[in-house]
Amino acid sequence: MKKVRLVIAYDGTDFSGFQRQPEQRTIQGTLEEALTALTGEEVTIHGSGRTDAGVHAQGQVCHFTTTSPIPSEKYAYILRRMLPRDLSVLSSSKVPFDFHARKSACWKTYRYQIDTQPISNIFTRRFRTHIPYSLDLEPMRKAGELLIGTFDFTSFCSAKTEVIDRVRTIYDCRVIKDEQGLYIELTGNGFLYNMVRIITGTLVEIGKHHRSVEEIPQMIQAHDRTFAGPTLPPEGLVLMRVGYTPWEREDSMI
Amino acid sequence: MKKVRLVIAYDGTDFSGFQRQPEQRTIQGTLEEALTALTGEEVTIHGSGRTDAGVHAQGQVCHFTTTSPIPSEKYAYILRRMLPRDLSVLSSSKVPFDFHARKSACWKTYRYQIDTQPISNIFTRRFRTHIPYSLDLEPMRKAGELLIGTFDFTSFCSAKTEVIDRVRTIYDCRVIKDEQGLYIELTGNGFLYNMVRIITGTLVEIGKHHRSVEEIPQMIQAHDRTFAGPTLPPEGLVLMRVGYTPWEREDSMI
Repeated sequence: MKKVRLVIAYDGTDFSGFQRQPEQRTIQGTLEEALTALTGEEVTIHGSGRTDAGVHAQGQVCHFTTTSPIPSEKYAYILRRMLPRDLSVLSSSKVPFDFHARKSACWKTYRYQIDTQPISNIFTRRFRTHIPYSLDLEPMRKAGELLIGTFDFTSFCSAKTEVIDRVRTIYDCRVIKDEQGLYIELTGNGFLYNMVRIITGTLVEIGKHHRSVEEIPQMIQAHDRTFAGPTLPPEGLVLMRVGYTPWEREDSMI
Repeated sequence: MKKVRLVIAYDGTDFSGFQRQPEQRTIQGTLEEALTALTGEEVTIHGSGRTDAGVHAQGQVCHFTTTSPIPSEKYAYILRRMLPRDLSVLSSSKVPFDFHARKSACWKTYRYQIDTQPISNIFTRRFRTHIPYSLDLEPMRKAGELLIGTFDFTSFCSAKTEVIDRVRTIYDCRVIKDEQGLYIELTGNGFLYNMVRIITGTLVEIGKHHRSVEEIPQMIQAHDRTFAGPTLPPEGLVLMRVGYTPWEREDSMI
């Protein structure tokens, strides 16, 4: 018996999200099917967290246990050849039994990609949300800074959220200009349901000058979803990295 | 009656090529259907040339004639809202009746995009061919230079080519390194069937040191398809631009 950790990437466009669901094409379901075929055992995949339908990952982490004699580091190579083209395994390695993809995670980085050009770019449309506005980056950056810290993020999560403790820490929020428009990168110790899409939706409102930076503290204090901006659609969202030690995060900040 | 020119972009992955075919999803068929619904007339689209199944375009040009009162410059906006997400109209304009998307074209630029990283990138896989080799760019560039000029390109077109005159002029061939690997950009007065994919396949063989730059003149002189390298797959190929005046090409060379 051993525990194997996988780092996976996927184009979420044609998946009904991470979590297995009957009759649906999901990341978990597709991985479990491939691993069951490979090992002859009923394998269960545990992810660092679910991603919604249409959300992508560049560095999602998951684990499974198996009695198969296949060397842990070979899974990446073998699975890449078995999986569909929109799901890939970047690496695989043996981990101690006390490792848990979700429970051991210390931080996550998400990126939200926006195409601000007048006409949506055909070649990036699967991974970028088209918002054909000239967004003012400076107030977006200032608003992002006000969100760094430990807060109850009730105003920035879906009203459907069942989790009771909505206190999370955001370590970093960056608004970066690029060729097609911009992307927003958020690093935190955990994110509530729709939290990244609501924070970025709020920053976009500020970038359009429909809302102001000064409203951020009130939004946080309100603990009420109706105070924050809209939820952006899933296509622009990418889970970039999941970290399991604080020092990794400090390294990646450099 | 007027003639309208469209500049279109498409992700060719889910199309059976440009040319209309019964029961197939094609660029021409999809455009004609939308225009017929819009104008109430049976519209025929004429492209600057066909692109194969799986080949993309960033600046394909086509034209149609219509008696519809819709202003020519409005078609781009209206069609963008009618067409599926993988086909877009960048611009539309009225052209003189002697304009013909194919016959009036002076030059075309194609780009072939290659991902040379060990693991295929999930986010660019639709538009890049995965060739996980470290390619030596210098000999590829030298070989590209030897292909610039006016030659009978019989060795570099599909053996199925029915065209008798295989003399074409290549104006420019660039091999450019980028984040994911490289791309090759070819500009010429016209390209034979599979010509870009065979030229780039030959350059890749040279980049792998499987063939040498010195073989290029022999390949050209042989007038025999078996002398050149393999045909690369369609996914890396993008029709970038079609030019209708020589000076536009000179501008874009700067």
